[in-house]
Amino acid sequence: MRVLGIDPGLTRCGWGVVDGSPGRPLSLVDVGVVRTSADLPLAQRLVAIEAGVEECLDRLRPDAVAVERVFAQHNLRTVMGTAQASGIALLVAARRGLPVALHTPSEVKAAVSGSGRADKAQVGAMVTRLLRLQEAPRPADAADALALAITHIWRGGAQSRIDAALARAGRT
Amino acid sequence: MRVLGIDPGLTRCGWGVVDGSPGRPLSLVDVGVVRTSADLPLAQRLVAIEAGVEECLDRLRPDAVAVERVFAQHNLRTVMGTAQASGIALLVAARRGLPVALHTPSEVKAAVSGSGRADKAQVGAMVTRLLRLQEAPRPADAADALALAITHIWRGGAQSRIDAALARAGRT
Repeated sequence: MRVLGIDPGLTRCGWGVVDGSPGRPLSLVDVGVVRTSADLPLAQRLVAIEAGVEECLDRLRPDAVAVERVFAQHNLRTVMGTAQASGIALLVAARRGLPVALHTPSEVKAAVSGSGRADKAQVGAMVTRLLRLQEAPRPADAADALALAITHIWRGGAQSRIDAALARAGRT
Repeated sequence: MRVLGIDPGLTRCGWGVVDGSPGRPLSLVDVGVVRTSADLPLAQRLVAIEAGVEECLDRLRPDAVAVERVFAQHNLRTVMGTAQASGIALLVAARRGLPVALHTPSEVKAAVSGSGRADKAQVGAMVTRLLRLQEAPRPADAADALALAITHIWRGGAQSRIDAALARAGRT
Protein backbone atom coordinates (compact mmCIF):
# COMPACT_ATOMS: atom_id res chain seq x y z
CA MET A 1 0.00 0.00 0.00
CA ARG A 2 1.27 3.47 -0.90
CA VAL A 3 0.11 6.22 1.45
CA LEU A 4 0.38 10.01 1.20
CA GLY A 5 0.51 11.64 4.64
CA ILE A 6 -0.30 15.35 4.93
CA ASP A 7 0.53 17.60 7.89
CA PRO A 8 -1.66 20.57 6.97
CA GLY A 9 -0.58 24.18 7.35
CA LEU A 10 -0.85 27.43 5.42
CA THR A 11 2.79 28.48 5.64
CA ARG A 12 4.21 24.95 5.47
CA CYS A 13 2.06 22.02 4.41
CA GLY A 14 4.17 18.88 4.87
CA TRP A 15 3.65 15.82 2.69
CA GLY A 16 5.30 12.41 2.61
CA VAL A 17 4.69 9.21 0.67
CA VAL A 18 5.53 5.78 2.11
CA ASP A 19 5.19 2.27 0.68
CA GLY A 20 4.51 -0.60 3.05
CA SER A 21 2.11 -2.98 4.70
CA PRO A 22 1.61 -3.99 8.35
CA GLY A 23 4.50 -6.15 9.60
CA ARG A 24 6.73 -5.50 6.55
CA PRO A 25 9.60 -3.02 6.14
CA LEU A 26 8.56 0.48 5.10
CA SER A 27 10.15 2.53 2.35
CA LEU A 28 10.25 6.24 1.63
CA VAL A 29 8.94 7.24 -1.81
CA ASP A 30 9.25 11.02 -1.58
CA VAL A 31 8.78 13.85 0.91
CA GLY A 32 8.45 17.61 0.76
CA VAL A 33 6.67 20.74 1.87
CA VAL A 34 4.28 23.06 0.03
CA ARG A 35 5.13 26.58 1.18
CA THR A 36 2.96 29.64 0.69
CA SER A 37 3.88 33.21 1.50
CA ALA A 38 2.00 35.11 4.20
CA ASP A 39 2.13 38.06 1.77
CA LEU A 40 -0.39 36.35 -0.54
CA PRO A 41 -4.15 36.70 0.01
CA LEU A 42 -5.58 33.70 1.89
CA ALA A 43 -7.55 32.47 -1.14
CA GLN A 44 -4.38 32.43 -3.30
CA ARG A 45 -2.55 30.43 -0.62
CA LEU A 46 -5.31 27.81 -0.68
CA VAL A 47 -5.07 27.61 -4.48
CA ALA A 48 -1.30 26.99 -4.16
CA ILE A 49 -1.88 24.23 -1.59
CA GLU A 50 -4.45 22.58 -3.86
CA ALA A 51 -1.95 22.66 -6.73
CA GLY A 52 0.78 21.16 -4.53
CA VAL A 53 -1.38 18.27 -3.33
CA GLU A 54 -2.66 17.64 -6.87
CA GLU A 55 0.93 17.46 -8.09
CA CYS A 56 1.80 14.85 -5.41
CA LEU A 57 -1.22 12.72 -6.35
CA ASP A 58 -0.52 12.97 -10.10
CA ARG A 59 3.14 12.09 -9.76
CA LEU A 60 3.17 9.55 -6.91
CA ARG A 61 -0.23 7.84 -7.24
CA PRO A 62 -0.90 6.87 -3.60
CA ASP A 63 -3.62 4.32 -2.75
CA ALA A 64 -4.80 6.31 0.26
CA VAL A 65 -4.34 9.69 1.93
CA ALA A 66 -3.91 10.33 5.67
CA VAL A 67 -4.40 13.85 7.02
CA GLU A 68 -3.69 15.11 10.53
CA ARG A 69 -6.88 15.82 12.45
CA VAL A 70 -6.85 19.43 13.64
CA PHE A 71 -8.44 20.52 16.91
CA ALA A 72 -9.83 23.97 17.59
CA GLN A 73 -8.40 23.92 21.12
CA HIS A 74 -4.78 24.10 19.97
CA ASN A 75 -2.79 27.03 18.56
CA LEU A 76 -5.68 29.46 18.34
CA ARG A 77 -3.60 31.88 16.27
CA THR A 78 -2.97 29.48 13.39
CA VAL A 79 -5.81 26.98 13.75
CA MET A 80 -8.13 28.58 11.17
CA GLY A 81 -5.48 28.42 8.45
CA THR A 82 -4.55 24.88 9.44
CA ALA A 83 -8.20 23.83 9.27
CA GLN A 84 -8.56 25.41 5.83
CA ALA A 85 -5.39 23.73 4.52
CA SER A 86 -6.60 20.36 5.86
CA GLY A 87 -9.97 20.92 4.16
CA ILE A 88 -8.20 21.44 0.83
CA ALA A 89 -6.18 18.23 1.29
CA LEU A 90 -9.33 16.23 2.13
CA LEU A 91 -11.19 17.75 -0.83
CA VAL A 92 -8.49 16.99 -3.38
CA ALA A 93 -8.16 13.36 -2.27
CA ALA A 94 -11.91 12.68 -1.99
CA ARG A 95 -12.59 14.29 -5.37
CA ARG A 96 -10.45 11.52 -6.92
CA GLY A 97 -12.28 8.82 -5.01
CA LEU A 98 -9.20 8.05 -2.89
CA PRO A 99 -9.84 6.74 0.63
CA VAL A 100 -9.06 9.47 3.15
CA ALA A 101 -8.40 9.03 6.87
CA LEU A 102 -7.80 11.47 9.69
CA HIS A 103 -5.39 10.61 12.51
CA THR A 104 -4.86 12.71 15.62
CA PRO A 105 -1.39 13.92 16.64
CA SER A 106 -1.55 11.60 19.68
CA GLU A 107 -2.39 8.59 17.51
CA VAL A 108 0.55 9.36 15.25
CA LYS A 109 2.99 9.84 18.13
CA ALA A 110 1.78 6.63 19.78
CA ALA A 111 2.03 4.67 16.52
CA VAL A 112 5.61 5.60 15.67
CA SER A 113 7.14 6.07 19.13
CA GLY A 114 4.94 4.09 21.54
CA SER A 115 3.96 7.26 23.43
CA GLY A 116 1.14 9.69 22.62
CA ARG A 117 3.19 12.40 24.31
CA ALA A 118 6.38 12.04 22.26
CA ASP A 119 8.01 15.31 21.20
CA LYS A 120 8.94 16.39 17.65
CA ALA A 121 12.53 15.15 18.03
CA GLN A 122 11.36 11.65 19.04
CA VAL A 123 8.94 11.46 16.12
CA GLY A 124 11.69 12.62 13.74
CA ALA A 125 14.13 10.05 15.15
CA MET A 126 11.63 7.20 14.77
CA VAL A 127 10.67 8.20 11.23
CA THR A 128 14.38 8.23 10.36
CA ARG A 129 14.87 4.75 11.85
CA LEU A 130 11.70 3.19 10.44
CA LEU A 131 12.44 4.42 6.90
CA ARG A 132 16.19 3.68 7.25
CA LEU A 133 17.19 7.25 6.34
CA GLN A 134 20.60 8.85 6.90
CA GLU A 135 19.10 11.81 8.74
CA ALA A 136 15.75 13.12 9.94
CA PRO A 137 13.63 14.77 7.23
CA ARG A 138 13.50 18.56 7.55
CA PRO A 139 11.46 20.60 8.32
CA ALA A 140 9.47 18.89 11.11
CA ASP A 141 6.30 19.22 8.99
CA ALA A 142 7.82 16.82 6.44
CA ALA A 143 8.75 14.30 9.16
CA ASP A 144 5.26 14.60 10.65
CA ALA A 145 3.70 13.89 7.25
CA LEU A 146 5.80 10.71 6.94
CA ALA A 147 4.79 9.70 10.49
CA LEU A 148 1.14 10.11 9.42
CA ALA A 149 1.68 7.87 6.40
CA ILE A 150 3.39 5.24 8.57
CA THR A 151 0.56 5.41 11.12
CA HIS A 152 -1.97 4.89 8.36
CA ILE A 153 -0.13 1.86 7.00
CA TRP A 154 0.09 0.29 10.44
CA ARG A 155 -3.51 1.01 11.42
CA GLY A 156 -4.08 -0.16 7.87
CA GLY A 157 -6.24 -2.92 6.52
CA ALA A 158 -9.75 -2.81 7.94
CA GLN A 159 -10.10 0.96 8.27
CA SER A 160 -8.82 1.57 4.75
CA ARG A 161 -11.34 -0.85 3.31
CA ILE A 162 -14.15 0.91 5.20
CA ASP A 163 -12.95 4.29 3.94
CA ALA A 164 -12.71 2.99 0.37
CA ALA A 165 -16.27 1.66 0.55
CA LEU A 166 -17.49 5.01 1.88
CA ALA A 167 -15.59 6.88 -0.82
CA ARG A 168 -17.16 4.69 -3.51
CA ALA A 169 -20.61 5.16 -1.98
CA GLY A 170 -20.07 8.92 -2.01
CA ARG A 171 -19.29 8.89 -5.72
CA THR A 172 -22.42 7.01 -6.77
CA MET B 1 -21.74 44.59 -9.88
CA ARG B 2 -23.00 41.07 -9.17
CA VAL B 3 -21.78 39.58 -5.89
CA LEU B 4 -22.03 36.06 -4.49
CA GLY B 5 -22.12 36.05 -0.68
CA ILE B 6 -21.28 32.83 1.15
CA ASP B 7 -22.06 32.08 4.81
CA PRO B 8 -19.87 29.00 5.20
CA GLY B 9 -20.92 25.91 7.13
CA LEU B 10 -20.65 22.14 6.78
CA THR B 11 -24.29 21.29 7.48
CA ARG B 12 -25.76 24.41 5.83
CA CYS B 13 -23.61 26.59 3.57
CA GLY B 14 -25.73 29.63 2.69
CA TRP B 15 -25.25 31.46 -0.61
CA GLY B 16 -26.93 34.49 -2.12
CA VAL B 17 -26.37 36.56 -5.25
CA VAL B 18 -27.20 40.28 -5.40
CA ASP B 19 -26.89 42.83 -8.21
CA GLY B 20 -26.19 46.44 -7.32
CA SER B 21 -23.76 49.30 -6.88
CA PRO B 22 -23.24 51.79 -4.03
CA GLY B 23 -26.12 54.27 -3.80
CA ARG B 24 -28.39 52.39 -6.24
CA PRO B 25 -31.27 49.98 -5.48
CA LEU B 26 -30.21 46.36 -4.96
CA SER B 27 -31.82 43.32 -6.54
CA LEU B 28 -31.91 39.67 -5.58
CA VAL B 29 -30.66 37.29 -8.26
CA ASP B 30 -30.93 33.96 -6.45
CA VAL B 31 -30.42 32.49 -3.00
CA GLY B 32 -30.07 29.02 -1.52
CA VAL B 33 -28.27 26.66 0.81
CA VAL B 34 -25.88 23.79 0.10
CA ARG B 35 -26.71 21.10 2.67
CA THR B 36 -24.52 18.13 3.51
CA SER B 37 -25.43 15.26 5.80
CA ALA B 38 -23.50 14.70 9.02
CA ASP B 39 -23.64 10.99 8.10
CA LEU B 40 -21.18 11.53 5.24
CA PRO B 41 -17.41 11.45 5.82
CA LEU B 42 -15.97 14.96 6.21
CA ALA B 43 -14.06 14.77 2.91
CA GLN B 44 -17.25 13.89 1.00
CA ARG B 45 -19.05 16.83 2.57
CA LEU B 46 -16.31 19.16 1.36
CA VAL B 47 -16.60 17.72 -2.16
CA ALA B 48 -20.36 18.43 -2.07
CA ILE B 49 -19.76 22.03 -0.95
CA GLU B 50 -17.23 22.53 -3.74
CA ALA B 51 -19.77 21.23 -6.27
CA GLY B 52 -22.48 23.53 -4.88
CA VAL B 53 -20.31 26.65 -5.08
CA GLU B 54 -19.09 25.70 -8.55
CA GLU B 55 -22.70 25.34 -9.68
CA CYS B 56 -23.52 28.85 -8.37
CA LEU B 57 -20.54 30.37 -10.18
CA ASP B 58 -21.29 28.54 -13.44
CA ARG B 59 -24.95 29.50 -13.46
CA LEU B 60 -24.94 33.00 -11.95
CA ARG B 61 -21.55 34.39 -13.06
CA PRO B 62 -20.84 36.83 -10.19
CA ASP B 63 -18.13 39.48 -10.57
CA ALA B 64 -16.89 39.00 -7.01
CA VAL B 65 -17.29 36.64 -4.05
CA ALA B 66 -17.67 37.68 -0.40
CA VAL B 67 -17.15 35.07 2.33
CA GLU B 68 -17.81 35.45 6.05
CA ARG B 69 -14.59 35.63 8.05
CA VAL B 70 -14.57 32.89 10.67
CA PHE B 71 -12.93 33.32 14.06
CA ALA B 72 -11.50 30.49 16.14
CA GLN B 73 -12.87 32.05 19.32
CA HIS B 74 -16.52 31.41 18.43
CA ASN B 75 -18.53 28.18 18.43
CA LEU B 76 -15.64 25.87 19.24
CA ARG B 77 -17.75 22.80 18.45
CA THR B 78 -18.41 23.72 14.82
CA VAL B 79 -15.58 26.13 14.03
CA MET B 80 -13.32 23.58 12.34
CA GLY B 81 -15.99 22.55 9.87
CA THR B 82 -16.92 26.17 9.25
CA ALA B 83 -13.28 27.03 8.59
CA GLN B 84 -12.97 24.12 6.16
CA ALA B 85 -16.16 25.09 4.30
CA SER B 86 -14.94 28.70 4.05
CA GLY B 87 -11.60 27.46 2.71
CA ILE B 88 -13.40 25.55 -0.05
CA ALA B 89 -15.43 28.65 -0.99
CA LEU B 90 -12.28 30.81 -1.14
CA LEU B 91 -10.45 28.18 -3.18
CA VAL B 92 -13.19 27.76 -5.77
CA ALA B 93 -13.52 31.53 -6.32
CA ALA B 94 -9.79 32.26 -6.43
CA ARG B 95 -9.13 29.34 -8.79
CA ARG B 96 -11.31 31.17 -11.34
CA GLY B 97 -9.48 34.44 -10.80
CA LEU B 98 -12.53 36.06 -9.18
CA PRO B 99 -11.84 38.75 -6.57
CA VAL B 100 -12.55 37.37 -3.10
CA ALA B 101 -13.17 39.36 0.06
CA LEU B 102 -13.72 38.38 3.68
CA HIS B 103 -16.11 40.38 5.88
CA THR B 104 -16.58 39.80 9.61
CA PRO B 105 -20.04 39.16 11.09
CA SER B 106 -19.84 42.56 12.85
CA GLU B 107 -19.04 44.35 9.59
CA VAL B 108 -22.01 42.68 7.92
CA LYS B 109 -24.41 43.50 10.76
CA ALA B 110 -23.21 47.10 10.86
CA ALA B 111 -23.50 47.46 7.08
CA VAL B 112 -27.07 46.25 6.75
CA SER B 113 -28.56 47.32 10.11
CA GLY B 114 -26.34 50.13 11.39
CA SER B 115 -25.30 48.09 14.45
CA GLY B 116 -22.48 45.56 14.73
CA ARG B 117 -24.51 43.85 17.44
CA ALA B 118 -27.73 43.29 15.48
CA ASP B 119 -29.37 39.88 15.95
CA LYS B 120 -30.34 37.39 13.24
CA ALA B 121 -33.93 38.67 13.09
CA GLN B 122 -32.76 42.25 12.50
CA VAL B 123 -30.38 41.17 9.74
CA GLY B 124 -33.15 39.10 8.13
CA ALA B 125 -35.59 42.03 8.32
CA MET B 126 -33.11 44.44 6.73
CA VAL B 127 -32.20 42.01 3.94
CA THR B 128 -35.93 41.61 3.22
CA ARG B 129 -36.41 45.38 3.09
CA LEU B 130 -33.28 46.19 1.08
CA LEU B 131 -34.05 43.57 -1.56
CA ARG B 132 -37.80 44.39 -1.52
CA LEU B 133 -38.78 40.77 -0.79
CA GLN B 134 -42.18 39.57 0.46
CA GLU B 135 -40.64 37.69 3.38
CA ALA B 136 -37.25 37.02 4.97
CA PRO B 137 -35.17 34.36 3.19
CA ARG B 138 -35.03 31.08 5.12
CA PRO B 139 -32.96 29.57 6.65
CA ALA B 140 -30.94 32.30 8.40
CA ASP B 141 -27.80 31.09 6.58
CA ALA B 142 -29.36 32.16 3.27
CA ALA B 143 -30.28 35.61 4.66
CA ASP B 144 -26.75 35.98 6.08
CA ALA B 145 -25.25 35.16 2.69
CA LEU B 146 -27.38 37.91 1.08
CA ALA B 147 -26.31 40.33 3.82
CA LEU B 148 -22.67 39.51 2.98
CA ALA B 149 -23.27 40.23 -0.71
CA ILE B 150 -24.97 43.55 0.15
CA THR B 151 -22.10 44.47 2.49
CA HIS B 152 -19.62 43.76 -0.26
CA ILE B 153 -21.50 45.92 -2.78
CA TRP B 154 -21.68 48.83 -0.33
CA ARG B 155 -18.08 48.59 0.82
CA GLY B 156 -17.58 48.17 -2.92
CA GLY B 157 -15.44 50.12 -5.30
CA ALA B 158 -11.93 50.61 -4.04
CA GLN B 159 -11.53 47.34 -2.16
CA SER B 160 -12.86 45.29 -5.07
CA ARG B 161 -10.39 46.87 -7.44
CA ILE B 162 -7.54 46.07 -5.04
CA ASP B 163 -8.74 42.47 -4.74
CA ALA B 164 -9.05 42.13 -8.51
CA ALA B 165 -5.51 43.41 -8.98
CA LEU B 166 -4.23 40.93 -6.39
CA ALA B 167 -6.16 38.09 -8.03
CA ARG B 168 -4.66 38.96 -11.43
CA ALA B 169 -1.18 39.17 -9.89
CA GLY B 170 -1.72 35.73 -8.32
CA ARG B 171 -2.58 34.24 -11.70
CA THR B 172 0.50 35.46 -13.51
